[in-house]
Parts: sequence; structure tokens; C-alpha cells
Amino acid sequence: MDYSQQSLELHARSRGKIEIKSKVSLNTKEDLSLAYTPGVAAVCTEIGNDPKKSYTLTNRANQIAIVSDGTAILGLGNLGPEAAMPVMEGKSIIFKEFAGIDAIPLCINSADVEDIVKFCKLIEPSFAGINLEDISAPRCFEILERLENELAIPVFHDDQDGTAIVTVAAVINACRVTGKKLETLRVVINGAGAAGIAIARLLIHDGVDDVILVDTKGAIYAGRPGMNSIKESISAITNKEHRKGDLGDLLAGADVFVGVSKGNILSGEMIGRMNSAPFIFAMANPTPEIMPDLAYQAGASIVGTGRSDLPNQVNNALVFPGLFKGLLSTGITKITPDLKLAMAKAIAYSVEPTKEDLMPTAFNKEVVGNIVAVFSGSKEAVEVS
Amino acid sequence: MDYSQQSLELHARSRGKIEIKSKVSLNTKEDLSLAYTPGVAAVCTEIGNDPKKSYTLTNRANQIAIVSDGTAILGLGNLGPEAAMPVMEGKSIIFKEFAGIDAIPLCINSADVEDIVKFCKLIEPSFAGINLEDISAPRCFEILERLENELAIPVFHDDQDGTAIVTVAAVINACRVTGKKLETLRVVINGAGAAGIAIARLLIHDGVDDVILVDTKGAIYAGRPGMNSIKESISAITNKEHRKGDLGDLLAGADVFVGVSKGNILSGEMIGRMNSAPFIFAMANPTPEIMPDLAYQAGASIVGTGRSDLPNQVNNALVFPGLFKGLLSTGITKITPDLKLAMAKAIAYSVEPTKEDLMPTAFNKEVVGNIVAVFSGSKEAVEVS
Repeated sequence: MDYSQQSLELHARSRGKIEIKSKVSLNTKEDLSLAYTPGVAAVCTEIGNDPKKSYTLTNRANQIAIVSDGTAILGLGNLGPEAAMPVMEGKSIIFKEFAGIDAIPLCINSADVEDIVKFCKLIEPSFAGINLEDISAPRCFEILERLENELAIPVFHDDQDGTAIVTVAAVINACRVTGKKLETLRVVINGAGAAGIAIARLLIHDGVDDVILVDTKGAIYAGRPGMNSIKESISAITNKEHRKGDLGDLLAGADVFVGVSKGNILSGEMIGRMNSAPFIFAMANPTPEIMPDLAYQAGASIVGTGRSDLPNQVNNALVFPGLFKGLLSTGITKITPDLKLAMAKAIAYSVEPTKEDLMPTAFNKEVVGNIVAVFSGSKEAVEVS
Repeated sequence: MDYSQQSLELHARSRGKIEIKSKVSLNTKEDLSLAYTPGVAAVCTEIGNDPKKSYTLTNRANQIAIVSDGTAILGLGNLGPEAAMPVMEGKSIIFKEFAGIDAIPLCINSADVEDIVKFCKLIEPSFAGINLEDISAPRCFEILERLENELAIPVFHDDQDGTAIVTVAAVINACRVTGKKLETLRVVINGAGAAGIAIARLLIHDGVDDVILVDTKGAIYAGRPGMNSIKESISAITNKEHRKGDLGDLLAGADVFVGVSKGNILSGEMIGRMNSAPFIFAMANPTPEIMPDLAYQAGASIVGTGRSDLPNQVNNALVFPGLFKGLLSTGITKITPDLKLAMAKAIAYSVEPTKEDLMPTAFNKEVVGNIVAVFSGSKEAVEVS
């Protein structure tokens, strides 16, 4: 089903998806005197003396910024900051509905690394965390690394690590269902942007030995001319046999296809070249690399996409609400590879998977709690990871 | 009454005053498919083709940023960005309650003019307007002027023009009650920061001929050594007789005291030197320059303060909700002196004033409508202005 027209109508009718709500009443002079002047002066003074009290006397502890420059919106590309707003508002209501977190969309008017870093440093006092979103590679890697070092609050780029965590969760569950061993899989990832590179890194961290990344120029291999530094660095730990060729060539003998680039680029014929009963994760949004029915016809054993309206949704929405709830509730600020992997397992083990119901749905209330448990190091977290 | 303890308790209990609320439902896969992926892609594409559609397909048209660097918080001074948050959250809930506007507090980590200008330019795509707040003079004048020229969305510094508009409204109503003529008043303004200078400008625009500004060094007069450019420029149109001296000296023969600096600096004895039955607007927050009972004992005919818990509140909260509702609903982007004066009159004429009830309260539902009418140029606006 095409949701375009219905979605346009919904957005036009509601004029966007978020609004501000007051947590206190404002009906009397006394209400005003407490929430505003003169009473508020004591609150300001208290925080002025100890800025950490902004975490208990304002909404800061529960408030994050969703920052985007609009350069890599879904699978649509660079449409500019205004066009990114509907996605950020969508994430904001998912944050609120699934984790109770107040997430403020801030789509900004520059794609310059220095500007984006500066911007995040400027807003730090108002927020407990920053969720970067839809920022194109390779800039996103530098921005994230800079901010991890230069900010005291946690920073997360959902298109890198959110996608990586949920993809690894899907691969884990596909192995659970089919009995295949993760360590023996050959995985081909189409798309070497923010998501593709982060997925490769996390799969390798989870023990997958044979990962090949493919971009518009074909396979990435060590020594390929003209690569940016991020691709150079990933080429050192992927594609150990230095295979070359295009996506179709590389799929021969592969067990898993992960698509995080453009829609409609995978054919049944290409799936036919893969090892028997492959896993197909066609996660380009809104149009997958191949529609599930075609993939199954071609012999896939398990098929997932990023879309909410298709079975086996493999979408970051399973990750970011719990991840930030975990960060905000524990005060942890660094998201290590081990934490990412533990989150992937927490998501995977939130259900007993089947081929048709591989993943927990976004409405599965246990997922957020299981991810938070990873952060709090509670007994439950240890059990699932 | 001292609201400090009660206000601290309220803020600690509610952990701040604002939260995000969804305007659409998110209970089913179909809800997700419409509000998020895949449906949202059509909305992004539509805005990408015409960024102006962000005003109809996102919350932008009803969404403004409240930007502060925390350098001039209430009458408390420079307490830093975290400490400004409680005021900004207070303004946010006033915006929502009185005008239905969603205002996002953004307290930022730099007091540098270039940084603040850059920041506002970066966030422009996400908002329909910017309310600058609690930024100290003289930087605030340069920042506002730069942004008025460099942004396409309206910008307003509440501590300048919000205070000026509501103060002029109070002076207008004091004249209506007492029969004094505005043109013949001698007004002494204590405080030559953002508010004091903007008040002087607007009073003069309304026909007051004799305005004297006083700062920590005494009267401002043309040629006084060591003034910044803003004070130099205001010295050319105020204090025409080049009076010198401290506040006590200058109040001799004055009809109106306007306080926008520090609390507790006005004594009954000083009021005694003024012309008979003077107007006292002691608007320092949270502690007024003099408490009303003392001012009345000393002979004042009309006394107002900035506080919500005292009679005759003269507070920007009467201005900014209607002002932004007017801006957002008409698309007007420049707030001219004539518009400011028309707003002052709209506020003043929202009530039939008495000495004890000089001003409409913040809860007077007509004020916002009367201010909006100024912007829309409707019949009502013409009548009151």
C-alpha cells in the first residue's frame, strides 16, 4: 500500500506532529508567581550556584535534541533542513510514546562539520543528550567523534549505530531461527555510508568474519584508489580476500544481504546466486531494495525491511527510545561497541523469533526495558547478553 | 509573600515545566506508517521541492525558539545558560497557555555576538520566529539588529521591546486614570540596559518629551565620557537639559519613575522629592526598587511592579504571547515603532483602568486578541490605536 497521499493529508490536517505541553498549572496569580516571577528567581539562583541542578529543577534530565542537517533523509538524500523536519517530528513522537523522552527536533541550516559541532556545543546546557540524525557520510563520522570527545552529554548518530544495532539484532534472530552460525556467515552490505560502515563494524565485533561492503563503485577492498579515510579504514577489516566486482558478482556465495542504500537494486536473479536460503534485509526507506514477496520467490529464507507496514521490520525505532532512556537514567555518556552489541542482543532476545515474526514490533513494551537493563547492568541485562 | 521555597519544591516535583506532546496517534502499525516511514517520505519530498511547505506540513508555523545566553536573567544578572532555563520554560508555558504557541527554550553556551547570531541563523529552518531573552546590553542591541537584517523570520528581544511596550501601556493608563498628559511628563528611568533604553525610545516615540536615563554612574547626558555606542545614541534624544547627578538628584521634579535595574534602590524620601502624586513603576524582578506600600506612603498616586503576586503587574507576559500570535498569523516580520506603540495602546485599552487595577491581568483573555488585531489591521485594532 502507498501511504503517500494519506500521510500528506495527515500532516496537513494536524500541521505537523508535535506540540509543547505544560507540566504545571497556570490558572491563577499564584500559579504564575510559582512558575514564573517572582518564585522562579530562587530556582535560577539555585542552578546558577550549581549548574548540575538543571537536571532536577528543569526538564533537562528528560530532554534531548534531535539534530539534523537534512543531507541524508531516509533513502531520499539531501533535501535540506526543512524537509528533514517531518522525520525528526516522527522520531520525537516515537521517543515520547515508547520511552517518555522529550526530544526536540532541530534541523539546521548548514552541512559544515565545524558549524554542526559548534551548534551542538552551544545547545549542550539545555539538553541531557543529542541524537544526530540523517547526516551524510563521511562527515557524520567526524562529527560524532568530535562530539563524543568535546561534549559532557552523550551523543548518538542514529543512522550509524541505531541501524547497526537493529541490523545485528535481526541477523542474530535469523541465526536463531535457521540454526546458522553467525561466525560462518558471509555478509554483503550494499551502501557504504553512515549505516553500512557502522553495521560492518558491529557485525565484525560480534564475530562475523566475512563482511564485504559495496558502494556505487563496487566492492570496497584495501588499496582501492580514491576512497575517503572512513572507507580506507573499514577496508582494512572487511573483504579479506580482496574480492572485486559489482553487487551481483559479490553476492555469489553470500549468506546475508544487507541493503542500506537505494531501493529496487536487488533482483530475484541476484538472490539466486547466493548460498541457499539466504537472509535478505532490504532496509532502504521508503522503497526497499527488493519487495519481500519477490525475495521469497527467489529463495530467501528470511526477509526484513525498514518499513512499518511490512512484516519483519528492522528499524532503528526499536533502538533509540530504549537507548536514550538507558543513557538518561544511568548517566552513562559513552556508547561502547560492547554496549551496542548487548543492546542488539537485548532486542533480539525480547522475542522468540520465527521466520514470519523475526523481530519485536515497535509496540513491544518489553524492548525498551530490556535495553535499559543493559545500561543499568541489572540481572536481566546479564541474562540476555 | 516569599515564593522561593514553594517554587523550588514545585520545580523539583515536576522536574521542570514543559514536555513534548504528540498531535497524532501512535497506536498501530498504520499510525507508524503514516507518521513515520514509509509515509513520511512523501511529506519530506514535498517540502524538499518547496521549503515553504514546512509551514503547513510540520509544526513550524506555530513554533518559535526562545534563545538566551543567560547573561541578564530577571534582575539577577549573569548566572549562565543552565540557570536561564527555568525562566525560559516559564515563558514557554505562558506562550502555550495564553496564545497556543509552541516555544522551545534554547539556552546556549556562549555570550559571543557572532556565536549567538550564527546560532539563530542555523536554527531558522525549524522555527517561525525567534524570541531573544535575557541577553545583556549592549550586545543585545547589535544581535537584534543583525538578526532583523539577516533572518527571514521575525525576531524579538523581549527584554527590550516587550518591557518597553508594557511600560508604555502602564504610563498610558496612569495618564488615563489621573488626567495627566503624557506629553508633559518628566520620566526618570533607572537602568540603561536593554529594557531602559528600549523604554526611553518608545516613550519618546509616543510623544514624551522629557526622559532621563540613569545608570550606575548617574545621569546619561550627551558627551558623558566612556559611554558605549548605544548610550551615546540614546543620550542624543534624552536629557535635553544635560542634567547631571545621581538618581536622587534627578528625581526632583520628575512625574514618573521607571525602575528596570536593581531592587531596593528607591526610598520614600526620594519619592518625596518628585512632583506631587507621581507614578512609580518599580519593575526589577524578583525584588522591586521599592515595595508598593512604602511608595504609596511616600505619596505615589499609582504604583506598579513586575511581579505576579502584587497589584498592577507591569510584565512582558502581557505582550509576548499576543505579539507572536500576531506575527505568526499575519506573516509580518518587522516590528516597527508604530506597531510597538499600537500594541501598547491595545494592551492599555483592554481595560478601563483604575489606580488599583491599572492593567489587564495576564489572565485577561482579550489582551491577546487585541494585540493580534493590531497586526491584522482589523477594525478593532484601528479603534484602540
